[in-house]
Amino acid sequence: MNTISFQGIEGSFHHEVAIGYFGQDQRWLGRDHFGEVFDDVEQRRAEYGVVAIENSNVGTIVGNLDHFERVNLQIVAEVYLSVQQCLLIHPDATIDSITEVRSHPMALDQCRGYLRNQLAWDRIEVSDTAGAAKWIMDQSATHVAAIGSALAANVYGMSIAARSIQQDATNQTRFWVLANESEGVHPGLTNIESKKGSISFETSHDSGALADALVAMKASGWNLTKIESRPVPEVPWRYRFYCDMELSSKTSLPEIVSSLNSLEQQEIIESSRVLGVYPVNHF
Amino acid sequence: MNTISFQGIEGSFHHEVAIGYFGQDQRWLGRDHFGEVFDDVEQRRAEYGVVAIENSNVGTIVGNLDHFERVNLQIVAEVYLSVQQCLLIHPDATIDSITEVRSHPMALDQCRGYLRNQLAWDRIEVSDTAGAAKWIMDQSATHVAAIGSALAANVYGMSIAARSIQQDATNQTRFWVLANESEGVHPGLTNIESKKGSISFETSHDSGALADALVAMKASGWNLTKIESRPVPEVPWRYRFYCDMELSSKTSLPEIVSSLNSLEQQEIIESSRVLGVYPVNHF
Repeated sequence: MNTISFQGIEGSFHHEVAIGYFGQDQRWLGRDHFGEVFDDVEQRRAEYGVVAIENSNVGTIVGNLDHFERVNLQIVAEVYLSVQQCLLIHPDATIDSITEVRSHPMALDQCRGYLRNQLAWDRIEVSDTAGAAKWIMDQSATHVAAIGSALAANVYGMSIAARSIQQDATNQTRFWVLANESEGVHPGLTNIESKKGSISFETSHDSGALADALVAMKASGWNLTKIESRPVPEVPWRYRFYCDMELSSKTSLPEIVSSLNSLEQQEIIESSRVLGVYPVNHF
Repeated sequence: MNTISFQGIEGSFHHEVAIGYFGQDQRWLGRDHFGEVFDDVEQRRAEYGVVAIENSNVGTIVGNLDHFERVNLQIVAEVYLSVQQCLLIHPDATIDSITEVRSHPMALDQCRGYLRNQLAWDRIEVSDTAGAAKWIMDQSATHVAAIGSALAANVYGMSIAARSIQQDATNQTRFWVLANESEGVHPGLTNIESKKGSISFETSHDSGALADALVAMKASGWNLTKIESRPVPEVPWRYRFYCDMELSSKTSLPEIVSSLNSLEQQEIIESSRVLGVYPVNHF
């Protein structure tokens, strides 16, 4: 049994991902803020952390890239979740008794098509989908529905009045599993589809250094899939670049470290880091 | 006289930038949301719009990149503002009578060092720095201070009790001036320091297409300074890339369009757009 730190409370989408990856039988540590999850793992209060890094509609959660500069952790797996929103009600309630719906603003927005048929319902925005579910049970609020995960219904003993009520069937979220050690720690992984790597670096001040760096990476056989620029603190308009790459199954972490070292010696990049070399898993 | 649409109310940092660029004698159209500024210019309710695109500490305001996909506008200038936060009080107040401070959470955070010496003050978070200033005057609230710009003090007739109280002297924000036409429209520009261009594109599905695209751009003499990946709506994990580039003074917009067309014909990139070729101005 491991201790797993995640953002949110039990029944949240982070908790759903963590159960899918590690199984039910773990010690769960739900946190209000992403930064606490990074700290839990680095300070060994938890063996693993689970954090969302990107949503296919909304984009990157850039604050979680920035946390990597504070703590020295490794990404040990990437996990994808297709967000399935459900309408959750008290077990003594029926859908006809509902006059109010509560959820996170993003979840309410994702279900705007469904809610257009329920115009009489008041909409209350709260900070957490699972928190809305828990509140209904704590208050025995039979007139209120929550929008959240099937897991939240399970955790809090609620009825699911409707399933898959989100507007966009393609909405997915990408999560990273974090640990202190770098390789060989994928306890929950049964279905490895591909291998990826993530790195961060700054470039030299030379014109065209970023293009040079990406060319060298392509020559190493790394297929760059995504790049983000994040500000370097207190140095206006200097950036730290975050790259995700598809790797061949035989590319190893030491090989990537060595390629980055060589780019540093050529003064194309500086302050490079490998955030992880990891398998990819879909539920 | 032109009509200038900007985010915020009179006295906001956007208004400060717009006055610096266009001068005082304009028609001002303050808006709650950035999207309205884009719409105002496209629908010709305003000749120009002013929107923040990036802060040197916080990073890019990615929603404003996304707005470019909805509307067909051009960036006609880039303007930098060093954020100077002031403590603003009612002209009948003294600093000793203050028991509460109001501002935007980001402004309160930027002034955390100054506020550490004023622990007895209650802190109230509001959505708008200039709005906090206006509220104090509307309410004749002599016990409340706002954190905001010197311009807000001027607009609302307030006293400046302290200047430059922000923590980080390097904090700058980068703004874009938007218009329908592309070139030759820089009415307020007196001090052109350099020339930049911004483009957006998707890449082909080929491995390494992004590196190929950046190499071709480097060969054209464009110095890539920044790149962002934004999700393509409803196509999970496809990205639209936004690049800012430093250009030589003689690089023209048609030249960039022609280079991008050539990359499209080679099937390296697709759906490319030039967001603007524009001069850079610091206040």
